[in-house]
Formats: sequence, C-alpha cells, structure tokens
Amino acid sequence: MATIFTRIASGEIPSYKVAESEDFYAFLDINPLAKGHTLVIPRKVEDDYLFHLDEATYEGLWAFARKVAVAVKAAIPCKRVGVAVLGMEVPHTHIHLIPLQSEGDMDFRKERPQFTQDEFAATAAAILAEFNKL
Amino acid sequence: MATIFTRIASGEIPSYKVAESEDFYAFLDINPLAKGHTLVIPRKVEDDYLFHLDEATYEGLWAFARKVAVAVKAAIPCKRVGVAVLGMEVPHTHIHLIPLQSEGDMDFRKERPQFTQDEFAATAAAILAEFNKL
Repeated sequence: MATIFTRIASGEIPSYKVAESEDFYAFLDINPLAKGHTLVIPRKVEDDYLFHLDEATYEGLWAFARKVAVAVKAAIPCKRVGVAVLGMEVPHTHIHLIPLQSEGDMDFRKERPQFTQDEFAATAAAILAEFNKL
Repeated sequence: MATIFTRIASGEIPSYKVAESEDFYAFLDINPLAKGHTLVIPRKVEDDYLFHLDEATYEGLWAFARKVAVAVKAAIPCKRVGVAVLGMEVPHTHIHLIPLQSEGDMDFRKERPQFTQDEFAATAAAILAEFNKL
C-alpha cells in the first residue's frame, strides 16, 4: 500500500528527516502545532490503525518513538514531549510527538505557527544531531 | 511515590475499573472527552514523564494499553480509539485512550459530556467484559 507516508519514508517525496532506522522513519510535520512537532511512522504499513499493527511493528514503533522523543526534547526547549495518535488524516499509522509548554499546546484545532523552509531544515538538523548521539 | 493514581490502582481510592494486570491498571477518566475515555497507568511509577520510564515498564505499558484499546473499541461505538499522553495534570505517567468519531474529539479544552454514576459503572463494566475476553 503506497501512501504519501511510504513515499516520504522512501525519499520519493522530500521531507525534513529527524531520525530513521531500517523499519521506521521520523520527520517534521509541515503543519506543526509547535516547533519540532514530529511524525513517527513505520516504513511499511498494512493497516492504518495503530492497534491493528502486528506486535513486532507496534513494539518497534513505540521503542523508536521513545528515542525520537528524547532527541526532540534535547533539541527543542519544552517542558515535555507529548504524544498523540489520531489516525484520521492520513491512511498510514503515525505518532505525533509534540513539544509542549502547556496542555493547551495539544489542540489540533488551534492556529498553527508558521516557519520558513530554512527554519524547518535547521530544526530537523538539530533533532537529527541529537538522535545520532543516542 | 504515592500519587492519587497509585492510590486508585491499589483500590484505596475508588475508580471505574476497566482492566488490570499485575503491573498496570486502567480506569475511566471521570472528566471524559467522550464516553469510554480511559486512563492507563503503571501501578508503580518512579517518574512522571512517559519517556523516563524504564524500558520494561514502557514496553509493558504500551502492550497493556493496546489490549485495553481493543476492549474499548469493542464496547464503545467509535471509529477509532485515539491516544494522547500529555502528562501535566497528574504527576503519574498515564495514557489517555479516547473513543473518536472525528479528530475534533481529541480537544482537551472542549466542553466535557456529563454522565451519571450508573452510566460510568455500565461503561466500565462493558469494557471490562470485553477485556476479559482477550
């Protein structure tokens, strides 16, 4: 099943990469709730619902997301990295990792901050640098 | 560290239980975003930030949350069970599992639906019955 996210993970569609492994990929949400808002995905996905993933993919995804969250927290000033999985926007399981200053920051209907391409690239590079230290 | 959640998991403070295991506990959020909104917690927690949990607790928590999510979905009519971890309200790591009809359902600032004690009890019993089938 070739979704926009499998095409992003393969490099066919460009993205601001923040981390990758053989089976998983993480990149900046280009409509972020906050600076450093990251999406974490399995490269392959047979089903778009998190709780339908096979056990190995489910466990591997959460283990990878944890490493990415540690890198996001190290690179982006925030109190916490919040987690959200909604799964209704794109038919490919993805975990949102969102740098939070307060609970209100995790409101998917709020106005999104705007960043330039250079700002996205610098944010992604900063997270990737932290990820590569882990 | 005895938080309100460790006291709920031990039964010292009453809750609408929907699932439990030796190490984990799940109960209804009494200020829910939707019917069936459940909180999943480790019984013991040394740190209130999800990504600071030791590896076994982190992995076990997500594996348990998956079983609970399957039970919630079986008991409560919804399109998906969404996931959120914010961690700023109560100093004890907890995963929100939220039955979703649309993305807007995961808005922690929206007005909460009200339920009677009997309704909470019936919802919890329905989820627990599904959990016990797994």
